[in-house]
Amino acid sequence: APALPAPTPITVAYGDGIGPEIMEATLRILEAAGARLEIERIDIGEKVYLQGNTSGIQPTAWDSLRRTKVFLKAPITTPQGGGYKSLNVTTRKVLGLYANVRPCTSYHPFVQTKHPKMDVVIIRENEEDLYAGIEHQQTGEVVQCLKLISRPGCEKIVRYAFEYARVYGRKKVTCFTKDNIMKMSDGLFHKVFDEVGAEYPEIEKEHWIVDIGAAKLADTPEQFDVIVMPNLYGDILSDVAAQITGSVGIAGSANIGDGVAMFEAIHGSAPRLANLNVANPSGLLLGAVQMLVHIGQRDVAERVHNAWLRTLEDGVHTYDIFKEGNSSEHVGTREFADAVIRRLGSLP
Amino acid sequence: APALPAPTPITVAYGDGIGPEIMEATLRILEAAGARLEIERIDIGEKVYLQGNTSGIQPTAWDSLRRTKVFLKAPITTPQGGGYKSLNVTTRKVLGLYANVRPCTSYHPFVQTKHPKMDVVIIRENEEDLYAGIEHQQTGEVVQCLKLISRPGCEKIVRYAFEYARVYGRKKVTCFTKDNIMKMSDGLFHKVFDEVGAEYPEIEKEHWIVDIGAAKLADTPEQFDVIVMPNLYGDILSDVAAQITGSVGIAGSANIGDGVAMFEAIHGSAPRLANLNVANPSGLLLGAVQMLVHIGQRDVAERVHNAWLRTLEDGVHTYDIFKEGNSSEHVGTREFADAVIRRLGSLP
Ligand SMILES: CC(C)[C@H](C(=O)O)[C@@H](O)C(=O)O
Ligand SMILES: CC(C)[C@H](C(=O)O)[C@@H](O)C(=O)O
Repeated sequence: APALPAPTPITVAYGDGIGPEIMEATLRILEAAGARLEIERIDIGEKVYLQGNTSGIQPTAWDSLRRTKVFLKAPITTPQGGGYKSLNVTTRKVLGLYANVRPCTSYHPFVQTKHPKMDVVIIRENEEDLYAGIEHQQTGEVVQCLKLISRPGCEKIVRYAFEYARVYGRKKVTCFTKDNIMKMSDGLFHKVFDEVGAEYPEIEKEHWIVDIGAAKLADTPEQFDVIVMPNLYGDILSDVAAQITGSVGIAGSANIGDGVAMFEAIHGSAPRLANLNVANPSGLLLGAVQMLVHIGQRDVAERVHNAWLRTLEDGVHTYDIFKEGNSSEHVGTREFADAVIRRLGSLP
Repeated sequence: APALPAPTPITVAYGDGIGPEIMEATLRILEAAGARLEIERIDIGEKVYLQGNTSGIQPTAWDSLRRTKVFLKAPITTPQGGGYKSLNVTTRKVLGLYANVRPCTSYHPFVQTKHPKMDVVIIRENEEDLYAGIEHQQTGEVVQCLKLISRPGCEKIVRYAFEYARVYGRKKVTCFTKDNIMKMSDGLFHKVFDEVGAEYPEIEKEHWIVDIGAAKLADTPEQFDVIVMPNLYGDILSDVAAQITGSVGIAGSANIGDGVAMFEAIHGSAPRLANLNVANPSGLLLGAVQMLVHIGQRDVAERVHNAWLRTLEDGVHTYDIFKEGNSSEHVGTREFADAVIRRLGSLP
């Protein structure tokens, strides 16, 4: 018999709040689907912060991440105040994860939404902008924060967006900036969009000032395909786009760097819902599906995605999606995972 | 017979693109409604820019604005490149218009919307943040832009929001910031919100990180009442909120300073629609209604607002609101103004 392909090493963190529950559910589904993974577990988040480590991650955890180069990460909680740094942001910067890919797709009529035809991928610059974290108390009364935009940063993210569109057969890439006000910084992003875009003649190009672009996205998202934008706009508008598909709980996210990638849900750790077996594991699961494609296990990715879709189609829903009155079934996190597993079909 | 009250001097600018048409329509309605106004007209925008004045406004125009202290302004076009400065931003800064008040209300079923119960007022800080316009080319490859937040700036806008809620009987004020990342700058805004809010015990207080707040606003805007936020978030999210009421064309905006105020539509000059008699004058008209209240002509404000509402209720619509298939009538800018005027009723 032919040897089975070697499993792919990945680093996994269970996170805080609802993190452990949705990670447990996700990993059970991946295993049942036949994903070939060798899991290294690291601890991050609250526990590490409260041990006095303001970065929320142990130095040794970086070794695992640099070795496996693939990170499946549950949401974490960053304690308020006390100089704690956002681990999400640190990870993106330390590992050079310059592209944050956030597909926001409607699953109408299985997930109720006012925007049934939406299928947008937001590609968010992930290292620069106001996230540089440079803040300064100028006087007792005045604070400054620095927004940084670099040409290499713009080139990397814009090229990623066009390559993504090409590979996935997407027809249009839209750019959002506020360069009527920030002529140099957002202006640079817009200029690079025009320059790089010219190399992709087969793809339609479009630009909107971010305010009116955001308005269009919230009103008629079906007019967009791929949208590329600076970090902070991408943060805000990917939450908007994910939410209006029906639930922020079903969007996964890939953070891509040169040779390293991190996969997560786009929602947070929702501490108030922790340990209640109510959280929706779909966001992290769809992040994991992106991961499977990334590591070349597209067959498993498709099997998981199909089983997940059939679960929704069969009306099996966690509380955030469930609506009284239709014939659907209201289940907990574990039962949702079981339902997906039952729909995986026999393994090949 | 008792003497009529003296008319209030106001400064008016017809602007660019669709500006002259919607201003003409608005002023005709105000006159027919019996507004007591003494109009000083100034030129701003494209014509002035192209005369080589990078500010888009003649020095003498400031004299009029400083004298009348009330400015009804149509949208203008700022030419691309060439060091032209946004006149909107200049006006807000020179006149110290620190509060931008943007009511976003649904007029369901007369204006079709997915959010029939929405009645949100966005109160946007109007002078600080990235709008300080300080940009700097650090190297050939790196650009910086400065975000400025000051304690007096935060105090003024937050207090304005709570006073607004008190005067207009609004129950809740929500604050949006991104202080999990910008701990000092957005953190200051949030802190001042908590401090000033404590002086208004009768008003409910709430805070959301701007990404999830924006998602909630786009999804279920009816959960919000008054929302106060820094300048750039307010720019983006007031366009979102206005658009999802059914059209960005029906939202007016007040820019309030100490003793000076500017009233405008929140949409832009839409050059492609200019001179076609198709633009919706409602945004500027509702800005003018806010102006009438501001200058103490509440009776006229109500008359105009009621007539405008009746016009919508009767199904008389400009193209942006009009939907095929219902029994409504599709009219141009001038005819819409005529329809409002016919519904003013007899003057008292
Ligand atoms: C938690 C926070 C630092 C993070 C961000 O702002 O990027 C989150 O909102 C996200 O979008 O992943
Ligand atoms: C035209 C532009 C400078 C302005 C802004 O960004 O404030 C506009 O979008 C607005 O919201 O009034």
